[in-house]
Amino acid sequence: MKEARFFYAPNAEDNDRLPPEEAAHALRVLRLKADDEIFLMDGKGRFFRAEVTLTSRQDCCYRITEELPQQKTWNGYIHLAIAPTKHIDRIEWMVEKATEIGFDELTFLQTAFTERKNIRVDRIEKIVVAAAKQSRKAWLPVVNDCMSMTEFLNVPHRGAKFIAHCYDDFEKVDLMAALQRDSNVNEAVVLVGPEGDFSHEEVAQALTKGFQSVSLGNSRLRTETAGLMAVTMAQLTYRR
Amino acid sequence: MKEARFFYAPNAEDNDRLPPEEAAHALRVLRLKADDEIFLMDGKGRFFRAEVTLTSRQDCCYRITEELPQQKTWNGYIHLAIAPTKHIDRIEWMVEKATEIGFDELTFLQTAFTERKNIRVDRIEKIVVAAAKQSRKAWLPVVNDCMSMTEFLNVPHRGAKFIAHCYDDFEKVDLMAALQRDSNVNEAVVLVGPEGDFSHEEVAQALTKGFQSVSLGNSRLRTETAGLMAVTMAQLTYRR
Repeated sequence: MKEARFFYAPNAEDNDRLPPEEAAHALRVLRLKADDEIFLMDGKGRFFRAEVTLTSRQDCCYRITEELPQQKTWNGYIHLAIAPTKHIDRIEWMVEKATEIGFDELTFLQTAFTERKNIRVDRIEKIVVAAAKQSRKAWLPVVNDCMSMTEFLNVPHRGAKFIAHCYDDFEKVDLMAALQRDSNVNEAVVLVGPEGDFSHEEVAQALTKGFQSVSLGNSRLRTETAGLMAVTMAQLTYRR
Repeated sequence: MKEARFFYAPNAEDNDRLPPEEAAHALRVLRLKADDEIFLMDGKGRFFRAEVTLTSRQDCCYRITEELPQQKTWNGYIHLAIAPTKHIDRIEWMVEKATEIGFDELTFLQTAFTERKNIRVDRIEKIVVAAAKQSRKAWLPVVNDCMSMTEFLNVPHRGAKFIAHCYDDFEKVDLMAALQRDSNVNEAVVLVGPEGDFSHEEVAQALTKGFQSVSLGNSRLRTETAGLMAVTMAQLTYRR
């Protein structure tokens, strides 16, 4: 099976050549030449069939031959806000998998017990682009930088709002059940805490801001697994 | 928060000391001493509270003080049979995550397009044990060695049988919908193919052996993500 060659080209339609990194891959790894067929995704819902017109040492020029209509495979908006894990590779694989499975927005949370204080958003975006290309997603998830928990709670959010945590003294409902109950809303933001969970005060604060207290099931999940489970539950609820 | 110390001790009740590897961790990393409280899981559904009675350079002896009754958090049996990925780290993280989320049995499949010909089962078992301890699972999933696709199809399997693949010319139903429809069965084996999918003949052969042709949704998933999605769908169907 010959793999179709997908490239990420924001504003593909207004350009005639691949962005430098994609061009490097096209020229040096795939060794594309004039007349080769390629596919372009602009990350904003558009896919194009194109052909290579000209290559130089650095440039890979193309001509769009056809727009391929896309439909998002889920009808809704899934926003995950998660505390970054101490070991960055754990959050990185979650980003790859969540992109494959399908979600819309990712925010990194600074919480009371978050051990990691910063995230290289450019690195996360590269993972998102690679996973979106690999899984043929026409829409790229938005990646936001770190935000403090307080700031995040004070920003207005559309749709249903959930906070997943492990405390027993706050009543919890199952996230999947809650999503299905509100499935006419079709927009959700889910908060997932760090290795040491949210602080008790953070959960209480979120509840006063209209977040619903939820559980991700009876298993004790690592932060990154919890994030992926939240995305999967939303995806299984919203998918067409 | 002080972490409870969990140790894997098969036949915990018939012994008075931790297995060598667990003892090394208890003595050299956690520096446990007499009277410290520990928890033991035997991997077959039993959890014990115990106290350290005696330590030497190599031995960590214990006395069981209480059995802690366990209930499996899902009512069913989930068997994943998957082709190992070319890069072993991809299958390894899937094993960790599937153990956290919860499943019962794992078989590695040699298929027409499987690039990796062997798996170190001892290494996979270590990952399973670590993840089961971390997520407090009383039951350890069974890990089977590589088996050829033909051999696997010819062995009798209990419960519902599914093969997930990407061919459009075999009619497919959604795995989650199929599981929920048959949820009185509560036992499922799901086959997931390698990077290049099963061969067309393998799918046809599975169908003649009573496997149902299923899809894991509209997303194009990598092998390891497909495996985790299959486990998650079964877990969400069977959980209590």
